[in-house]
Amino acid sequence: MIPASYGRLGQLAGRFREQVKARFETLNQRRVFWESVLQGPVAEMIFAGKDRKAEQLLEQALEEGSTGHSDGEVYLVGGGPGDPDLLTFKALRLMQQADVVVYDRLVSRRVLDLCRRDADRVFVGKACNQHVISQEEINALLVRLAKEGKRVLRLKGGDPFIFGRGGEEIGELMAEDIPFQVVPGITSASGCAAYAGIPLTHQNYAQSVRFVTGHMKDGQCDLPWPELVQEHQTLVIYMGLLSLTQICEQLMRHGMSPRMPIALVENGTLPEQRILTGTLADIADQAAVTDFQPPALIIIGKVVALRDRLDWYSQS
Amino acid sequence: MIPASYGRLGQLAGRFREQVKARFETLNQRRVFWESVLQGPVAEMIFAGKDRKAEQLLEQALEEGSTGHSDGEVYLVGGGPGDPDLLTFKALRLMQQADVVVYDRLVSRRVLDLCRRDADRVFVGKACNQHVISQEEINALLVRLAKEGKRVLRLKGGDPFIFGRGGEEIGELMAEDIPFQVVPGITSASGCAAYAGIPLTHQNYAQSVRFVTGHMKDGQCDLPWPELVQEHQTLVIYMGLLSLTQICEQLMRHGMSPRMPIALVENGTLPEQRILTGTLADIADQAAVTDFQPPALIIIGKVVALRDRLDWYSQS
Repeated sequence: MIPASYGRLGQLAGRFREQVKARFETLNQRRVFWESVLQGPVAEMIFAGKDRKAEQLLEQALEEGSTGHSDGEVYLVGGGPGDPDLLTFKALRLMQQADVVVYDRLVSRRVLDLCRRDADRVFVGKACNQHVISQEEINALLVRLAKEGKRVLRLKGGDPFIFGRGGEEIGELMAEDIPFQVVPGITSASGCAAYAGIPLTHQNYAQSVRFVTGHMKDGQCDLPWPELVQEHQTLVIYMGLLSLTQICEQLMRHGMSPRMPIALVENGTLPEQRILTGTLADIADQAAVTDFQPPALIIIGKVVALRDRLDWYSQS
Repeated sequence: MIPASYGRLGQLAGRFREQVKARFETLNQRRVFWESVLQGPVAEMIFAGKDRKAEQLLEQALEEGSTGHSDGEVYLVGGGPGDPDLLTFKALRLMQQADVVVYDRLVSRRVLDLCRRDADRVFVGKACNQHVISQEEINALLVRLAKEGKRVLRLKGGDPFIFGRGGEEIGELMAEDIPFQVVPGITSASGCAAYAGIPLTHQNYAQSVRFVTGHMKDGQCDLPWPELVQEHQTLVIYMGLLSLTQICEQLMRHGMSPRMPIALVENGTLPEQRILTGTLADIADQAAVTDFQPPALIIIGKVVALRDRLDWYSQS
């Protein structure tokens, strides 16, 4: 059950065994050196498929007699939709390796619990429009921690490059010349769709899918409504539950059928997942009655009707 | 490094230890029983967060003295964009468990190599428009294998519900009353974007992202061009390399700027990843010169220009 790369890492280590023995006198020195290699940048290069670069780093570390960990770095990691079983191997490895974890409210508790036990944890908020600290402050925090020489895990719900502000955060790191990696995660749309039994595309119903966010500015949800009303397209709205009434009204006003199927997914992919399906005309009332809570994902389109046949998760 | 659920599985097993001892005389019988529990449907229920259901299944297996494996089932699994390190824990577990693997050309070799060594492998083709066997035949194959009592892995590149025909395949399974699970995978757009340093959304450049496919029917790429030309949107085209010239011409004809940035990603997330960036006006010529090959992903939008600053992978 181990990624294929471990084999290549083992081979690389094997080729250097004698040199390391010659370079470090005591068993303990060698142990520290190998730990740094097997968990540090050399291993990361192997996992990234950059075997030649890994070998160079190993040679360099050997020459310097160092562990290569003096410089800080940032891992921008997608934690997926909630179910920890949907974490990638790469994500979990970096979660176990980081010295400090910077996370916000969209990361599921079950995922957060898998970070290294003794890593510092910094909560940076973000619930709808309430930011505990601003985006600029988050960017500055990441830079500061990395400059202290720490391995910083910036843990995001879903995927960092789909409504995750990942671009903004690494832009600052790049400007400050701080090494970083980006690890994609399963975005909520994929996770919720799979566990809800709603294919986002389907030959007969939707040949394309569009993701937008529904969060409000000054009490308004400001979306390009006419563009969103398209035949043969599935529309996925992130963070739109608080704007649900407005979203349905505007889509109908711009020509979408009041009978268009729509689904709300609360706590998607988690055991407590709840799903509500209805039509543009009636879903807002239903959501109020059943007390749906953010964060929730909204899926709109004919594919939603397939759930009646394809719902496997809540029946299992 | 193990998912949290293993702890709960261990506790469940612990509570039943004495009963299992009483039920099965020999050590070998007990070993077979526990193996079936720790790899079979009971474990799956725990991993899915359905602890009560898991306990019921365990009780039932104990009563019947069976391993619960008599019925076949299908795992529809997203294998992600290529890098095996981007597999989820859930995907790899099912890959290790399946008796037979049904896969097509979009699954990376490195991912396929992680399936159970002694599992049968069935290649069902699909390169652009050449299908080795038809979709209907694939559906029928999955049904037949499951009815033979096999655990069938239907392994897809990317995510099964985003251009994966997953809905079509499980529709048939549902109609035949065959148990199945759907495991989301990292879709190519997420994987390629992360490794290319191109955020799909960005506060200043793109508040939405749209996925379409560019594959051709009768030599034509039939997309709803006017809809695709939108400000503040990133457009991702799957399987569009063969239609690249047409795509660029049509987008420009419908009003998109000839200077709009565009990126092609070949072998995304793999060590041999190649990326080409340019503009709508010049990319097709560049692609011809550099001999880009499908499958490749196309990303169009202002966010592509961020890559100049954010490219971390090819510099590492």
